Amino acid sequence: MNISMLVYPDMTPLDLLGPLQAWSLWPGCDIQIVWKNTQPVPTDTGMAVVPTHSFDQAFAEPDILFAPGGAAGTMAVLKDPDVMEFMAGRGANASWVTSVCTGALVLGAAGLLNGYKATTHWLALDLLPNFGAQPVKSRWVIDRNRATGGGITAGIDFGLAIIAEIDGEQAAKNVQLTMEYSPQPPFQSGTPDEADAETIAAVRSAFEQALS
Amino acid sequence: MNISMLVYPDMTPLDLLGPLQAWSLWPGCDIQIVWKNTQPVPTDTGMAVVPTHSFDQAFAEPDILFAPGGAAGTMAVLKDPDVMEFMAGRGANASWVTSVCTGALVLGAAGLLNGYKATTHWLALDLLPNFGAQPVKSRWVIDRNRATGGGITAGIDFGLAIIAEIDGEQAAKNVQLTMEYSPQPPFQSGTPDEADAETIAAVRSAFEQALS
Repeated sequence: MNISMLVYPDMTPLDLLGPLQAWSLWPGCDIQIVWKNTQPVPTDTGMAVVPTHSFDQAFAEPDILFAPGGAAGTMAVLKDPDVMEFMAGRGANASWVTSVCTGALVLGAAGLLNGYKATTHWLALDLLPNFGAQPVKSRWVIDRNRATGGGITAGIDFGLAIIAEIDGEQAAKNVQLTMEYSPQPPFQSGTPDEADAETIAAVRSAFEQALS
Repeated sequence: MNISMLVYPDMTPLDLLGPLQAWSLWPGCDIQIVWKNTQPVPTDTGMAVVPTHSFDQAFAEPDILFAPGGAAGTMAVLKDPDVMEFMAGRGANASWVTSVCTGALVLGAAGLLNGYKATTHWLALDLLPNFGAQPVKSRWVIDRNRATGGGITAGIDFGLAIIAEIDGEQAAKNVQLTMEYSPQPPFQSGTPDEADAETIAAVRSAFEQALS
């Protein structure tokens, strides 16, 4: 599997690391971390990551093309013609076009979700129709060759689901056990349906500040 | 909160990203990514990460000191006197001494788990008594000011648990909702107690190859 995973300034790195760690444990994968150039890219955690390949060096016809999300950083790449041209071009040639979190907005802005069911971070779900996509409230959504995951931590579930979809259950089970993925969230606070009103208000407020 | 998070060559970056992403959403944290120098550090996914501070520049008395795990990369740092000296020195001055996955072996080799209950990746649990630690099969373990998480993905649960422990439930719930942490693992294959024999054998074999 030839995999190209986009990175960009101020992205949310856990969006990337769920599928990246899972797929790096999937035998036979050749994974590229791609950006305009191979200089370190800052993330919203303060830690920078280093692309392995520039856009020019990326697989022409990747088996999987992937976009992670973020907040202000994502809004910036939606307006970046170099990123849009890269995603649209590689997306047209990719076997699978995928995202986690607001990475779905990157796919959408590149014209890659028009007519597809998709998901994204719960705070951004209402934006998907702007790109012709049909929003689905789900941990991950597979519609033909488009696969989208929900917010941030959904990338782990999404990454395992893609392995199962392409390579079968046993391959995904091996990776799940290697990653010791038997989650025990300390609270019931992972979605707006589970969380209390005080928590939802606090998170919405912080999100609006991050984008302002 | 002043937080120093160790990185090192061939570490498992998802071990780091669980708590790093959670803590970066925790108001008032100043997070350092530390290594011997600030050159990019390769990880076991093929993607490098960039330290923000060298050992010399790291907080003298961090509120939280953290070590991630890995396979061969972890075995190498256990024998690295510079890393052991840094961890032992900062660990003696830290309010909290913490790890995810085989990062517990790094704490242990630096003398920081002697007499403490701790956990680590299920494949490494039997190694903890070598460092005077008492192994506990649990998603995370808090014993006085030592906090250790299980394998790889346990870092998310661990990261949220630490926020709750230090700053209360509401702070942790806010971060959990922001990270949309309502996991839906595709299979029951996250621990050796859940997984089938074929999966356990495959993962043990891959682990032995990785260390050989």
